[in-house]
Amino acid sequence: MQLSPNHPSALLFTALHLAVSCLGSVASPAVSASGSASVAANYPSGTPFPGDYGGQYRPQVHYSAPQHFMSDPNGIFRDNNGTWHLYYQYNPLGLGFGNQHWGHATSKDLYHWTNQPIALGPPSKSVALFSGSAVVDKNNTSGLFPGQDNGVVAIFTLAGKDPDGGYGGPQTQALAYSHDGGFTYQLYQHNPVINSTSTNFRDPRVMAYKDHWVMVIAYSRDYTVGIFTSRNLINWTHASNFSLTGLLGAQWECPNLIHMPYYDQKGQKQDNIWTLFVNINPGGPLGGAVVQYYPGSFNGTHFEPVDSAARSIDSAKDFYAMQFFNNVGPGTDVESPVSIAWASNWQYTQLVPTAQEGWRSSMSLPREHFMTKVKGAGWKLVSRPYNLDRMVSETLVVEKNLTKEVVAVEFSGVESKAIYWEIHLTGIPDREPRSLSLNVSFVSPSTAENVRLGYVFGAVDFDLFGGDTPFFLDRGGAKGFDHTFFTQRFSVSSPHDNGTWSVSGVLDRSILEVFIDGGIETMTSTYYTKEPISVALFSLSPDLPKGMNVDLRVVGLHGVWDQVTDKDGIVYGNRTVKALA
Amino acid sequence: MQLSPNHPSALLFTALHLAVSCLGSVASPAVSASGSASVAANYPSGTPFPGDYGGQYRPQVHYSAPQHFMSDPNGIFRDNNGTWHLYYQYNPLGLGFGNQHWGHATSKDLYHWTNQPIALGPPSKSVALFSGSAVVDKNNTSGLFPGQDNGVVAIFTLAGKDPDGGYGGPQTQALAYSHDGGFTYQLYQHNPVINSTSTNFRDPRVMAYKDHWVMVIAYSRDYTVGIFTSRNLINWTHASNFSLTGLLGAQWECPNLIHMPYYDQKGQKQDNIWTLFVNINPGGPLGGAVVQYYPGSFNGTHFEPVDSAARSIDSAKDFYAMQFFNNVGPGTDVESPVSIAWASNWQYTQLVPTAQEGWRSSMSLPREHFMTKVKGAGWKLVSRPYNLDRMVSETLVVEKNLTKEVVAVEFSGVESKAIYWEIHLTGIPDREPRSLSLNVSFVSPSTAENVRLGYVFGAVDFDLFGGDTPFFLDRGGAKGFDHTFFTQRFSVSSPHDNGTWSVSGVLDRSILEVFIDGGIETMTSTYYTKEPISVALFSLSPDLPKGMNVDLRVVGLHGVWDQVTDKDGIVYGNRTVKALA
Repeated sequence: MQLSPNHPSALLFTALHLAVSCLGSVASPAVSASGSASVAANYPSGTPFPGDYGGQYRPQVHYSAPQHFMSDPNGIFRDNNGTWHLYYQYNPLGLGFGNQHWGHATSKDLYHWTNQPIALGPPSKSVALFSGSAVVDKNNTSGLFPGQDNGVVAIFTLAGKDPDGGYGGPQTQALAYSHDGGFTYQLYQHNPVINSTSTNFRDPRVMAYKDHWVMVIAYSRDYTVGIFTSRNLINWTHASNFSLTGLLGAQWECPNLIHMPYYDQKGQKQDNIWTLFVNINPGGPLGGAVVQYYPGSFNGTHFEPVDSAARSIDSAKDFYAMQFFNNVGPGTDVESPVSIAWASNWQYTQLVPTAQEGWRSSMSLPREHFMTKVKGAGWKLVSRPYNLDRMVSETLVVEKNLTKEVVAVEFSGVESKAIYWEIHLTGIPDREPRSLSLNVSFVSPSTAENVRLGYVFGAVDFDLFGGDTPFFLDRGGAKGFDHTFFTQRFSVSSPHDNGTWSVSGVLDRSILEVFIDGGIETMTSTYYTKEPISVALFSLSPDLPKGMNVDLRVVGLHGVWDQVTDKDGIVYGNRTVKALA
Repeated sequence: MQLSPNHPSALLFTALHLAVSCLGSVASPAVSASGSASVAANYPSGTPFPGDYGGQYRPQVHYSAPQHFMSDPNGIFRDNNGTWHLYYQYNPLGLGFGNQHWGHATSKDLYHWTNQPIALGPPSKSVALFSGSAVVDKNNTSGLFPGQDNGVVAIFTLAGKDPDGGYGGPQTQALAYSHDGGFTYQLYQHNPVINSTSTNFRDPRVMAYKDHWVMVIAYSRDYTVGIFTSRNLINWTHASNFSLTGLLGAQWECPNLIHMPYYDQKGQKQDNIWTLFVNINPGGPLGGAVVQYYPGSFNGTHFEPVDSAARSIDSAKDFYAMQFFNNVGPGTDVESPVSIAWASNWQYTQLVPTAQEGWRSSMSLPREHFMTKVKGAGWKLVSRPYNLDRMVSETLVVEKNLTKEVVAVEFSGVESKAIYWEIHLTGIPDREPRSLSLNVSFVSPSTAENVRLGYVFGAVDFDLFGGDTPFFLDRGGAKGFDHTFFTQRFSVSSPHDNGTWSVSGVLDRSILEVFIDGGIETMTSTYYTKEPISVALFSLSPDLPKGMNVDLRVVGLHGVWDQVTDKDGIVYGNRTVKALA
C-alpha cells in the first residue's frame, strides 16, 4: 500500500519542506504560488501527501497529518465495514491557517491510520471550505445512491471570501456525495442546501434520528445552535433554536448532539441521555478554546437541557473542535460514543515549533464517553482513551501497594517514546494530612526540562469542608517554546470520593493527555522540550496515612507509524482508492 | 487619633512579628498559645492592631489589615453619616487561615482607612465566626434599638467546629447588634436566627427591599442560593431557591443580590436591573476563585435570571468574595453600587511572601458598577475604580495622539510607588494589520523583573470574523514568589467596537488591577518582585494604521497611609470609639 520512494510525491515533499522554512507560519502565499494548489485545479488530488513521522515532536500514538497545517476534525464517521474515517480541516500547502481542504485518513482501530488523498477542496476561489459532517445514507434517502447502501453524504459550510482574503461571508451549507464510501466526493449540483446571508452560520453536524435526519449548526455570534430536520438530506427545515446557555465566550462553533449512555455512580447502566456539545473559541476561560456540553432531552426537533449549569471538558488549553464519529453510539455496533478533538489552541497554534518538522497540530486520542452523575453538581461527562490495550508494547513498571517514595522509570528504550501510566489510590482518609501529595514529573535527562503534574490533598488550599484537592499540570519546565498565550499552569478541583481516586495518561513526544479520577476530568496539553523526555518520576509525600494504598503501572506504547514507514523514514498513504472513484 | 508609640500594643506588635517568623504560614497554634486570643476572652479588643505599612509589598492605595491574615470583606455598609465600614474575615494572631474574627476599618472616601478595634469574635470555642452582612435598622424593625435610628444588625454564620479543628458544622445564622453605629456588637440572646443541621449553609447577605428584609445565603455544596424574608431581621422565612445555573465549581459562597443601574450601549440610563452575584471557590476555571453574576428580575421573594448564560468577573486569579456595601445604590445618596473584593486566591494565599512584612492579603480597589449590554452576549457588568481623582498626586505623562513607539515613565519619585495609567485608542480599523499590538511592561530596573500586559489586534489568533483580539497579563517576570498554582499568564477576548478601545489600571507595589475596554473586562492580579518596580514602558507596534489615535496618561497616586504613620513608621487606629460602647 506504500508508494515507492521514487514516486513524484516524494520530490514534492522535499520542495514543500524548503518552502516551509522560508515561509515560517505565514502559509497563504504558497497557495497562489503553487500550480498544484490552484483553486481552479480544485485541490492536489489522487495521492495522499507523504510525511516524515520521525521528528522529536511528532506524536506516535496520536494522529497528525503527514505535512503542514491541520485543525478541526470534521465529517468523521465509521462506515458499514467498521472503518473509521477521519477528515480534518487542512491546509495542504502551508504551516498556517488558510486554504482549507478536507484531509482524510482511515483506520481499523482508531490508532493505526492510513493517510488518504485529500477528500474535498474549495469549489471556487470565492469560497472557503469549512467544517461539516458526513453520514452514510444507507437507505438512499437522498436519491443520490441508486442501488447502493454505502453512499456517503457530506454537508459542510462554504464561507464567502472577500477579495482581500477576509471571510466576509455569506456562510451557506453545501452538500457533496461519495459513491466510493467516502474517499472521493462530487459537489451536489443544487447547492446550497441551506442558504443564508449570515457571516456566522456554520459547522453543520448531521445525524440520523428515527425516521428523519437532524442537523445541529452554529449561529456563532448569536451563541445559538440551530436545529434543522430533513427527510432526504437535501431539503432542510428549521425546527428550533437553543441559545445563550452556559459559557458564551466570543463565539460558538462545531455543535454535536449525541445520544450518550448513562452509568450511575454505582456503575449501573441507566437510560441514555442526549447531550449537546458546543465548542467555544475564542473566549474560553483559559484563553482561546473550550468545549462545553449540556445534558438534556431531545424529541427529534427540540433540545431541552436538564438545568442551566455550565459544564465544560478539559482543564488545560489544547482541546478543541471535539467531534463525535457518526454511525457510533447506542444502537450501533459500538455502544460508546467515540470522539476526537484537535489538540491545539488558536492562540498559538500557528507559532509552535513543530514547523521545524514540516507539520503543525495533532488530534487528541480517540476517546470513548458516557455520562454519569456526581454529588451536588449532577451530570458529568466521562472521557477515556479508546481501547489502548492493543497499543501496549511493554510493561515498564507494575507496583502494587507502593511503599517507595519515588519510582523512576527510564523509558528511552521504548522506541516510540510514548508511554501510558496509571495510578490508583484507595483508602484515602476523609481528612487527609495537609502534607499529602502525589507528584509526577516527566523529565528530559540532558536538560532537566520537564512537564509536571500532581494531586494535592489539601496542602495548599485550606481544607475547609473537604478542601480544594486540586490536580495540577505545569508545562512551564519545557523550554522548546514560549509565548505569552502559551499558558503554563493549569489546575482543576478533583475531590476524592469514598477514599478512592485515580489518574492516568498518555505522554507522546509533544502531547500529554491526562484522565483524572477515572476520566471525570481531563487535561490535554501540548508541550515542547528542547530535548526529548525519557524519564518519568512518580513520587509520594512521605508517611502515607495508614490504610492508604497506591498502585502504579507504566507501559510503553507501540508507535503507529513504524510499520508503515519506508526505508527513507517517510510514511505514504493508500493510493489504491483512486481506482474506486 | 493615633496611639503613642509607647502604647502596649506597640510591644505586642513586636512580639507577634517574632512569632510570625517562626510560624511561617501555619498560624493556628498561635491562637491557643496566646492568652489574649483565647476564645474565653472572645477576642483582643479595645484597641486596633498597629501595622507597619511601609513594606515593599504593602499596597498604598488598597486596604490591607494592619497585621496578619485577612480574607473576605463581610458586613460592609455605608452608615447614615456617609462613613464606609469595612469588616473582614481576620485572624488577628496568625499569617494563615483560622481563628476568624471580624476586623474593622472605616473611611470617608473608601481609600483613606482608619483601623478600628476588632468588631466581632467567635462567641465560643466550639464555633467559628464566618462571613455575613450588616444593615442599619433605621426604623428599629428589630426592636433592638429603641430611640435610635443608627442601630446596626449584623447577621453571620457560626460554623460548628470539631474537637480536632475541622469545620464539621452545623452552620447556623446568628445575629449581633451594635448601638454605637457598628463599632462594638452584642450577641443576640436567642441565636440562631436561622437554625440548620447543614455543614454548608452560610454567608447571609441581608438588604432592605420595600417593606421587608431579604437575605440571600449559600447552600454551598448544592450550588443553591436560598432567599429568605423577614419583617424584623430576627424571624426569617424561606421564600425560594435559585440553583444550578452557570458555573458550579466545587462550591458556591457569599451571594449578593444587588439592584444595578443599567446604561445601554449609547450610555443612556434605562431601568435598573437586579443582579445576583455568587462567589465560587474552589473550582473556578482558572483554579480556585471566580465571581459569577446573573442579571434578572426580583419581586421580593423570587429571583429569575434573564437567561442561562454563565457570566463571570475578572479574568485573572486574585478576585474573590466580592461584596457590595449596604445602604448604597439606586435610591440612596450613592447611585452606583460599590463593591470591594478580597484580592487573593486560596490556592496560594497562605504562602505569599508578604508574610515577611507581617501581613497577608489586601482588598481590591473599591469599585463602582453598572450593567450594560454588548452585542450578542447581552448583559455585562461594568467595573470601575471608585472615584480615584482625589488620589492623584502628580501627572507623570500626558500624551495626546501618541506617535512615539515607546514611552518610558520612571516613577521612583512617586512616594507611594503606586500609579494610575490609562490608554485610549480611537480609529482602529475594522480589519487591523496582524502586526498591530500594544504592550505595557512594569519593570524593576535593577533586576529587570517585570509584569506585562498587552492587547493583540489579531497578531496571534487567526482573525476570522473579527478574531480573538485577546488582552493578556503576564506576571511570570516577577521573581519574588513562585508556586505551581500561582498561574502566571491570563488572557481575555476583548473585541474593539466602532474602532475604539481603552485600558486603564492601578499598579500598587504587589497588586495590579486592570480595567479593559472601559471596565467591561477586568484583571486583578497580585505579583511579587524581588526588587520594587519603578519604570513603566508603554509601547506600540510600528506603523500605526492611518487615522488611528492613541492617548496615554500616567499619574502618581497618594499613599493613603503616609499621613497616619507615626515617626516609627507604624499606623495605629482610632481608639476613641471604645468610649462609645
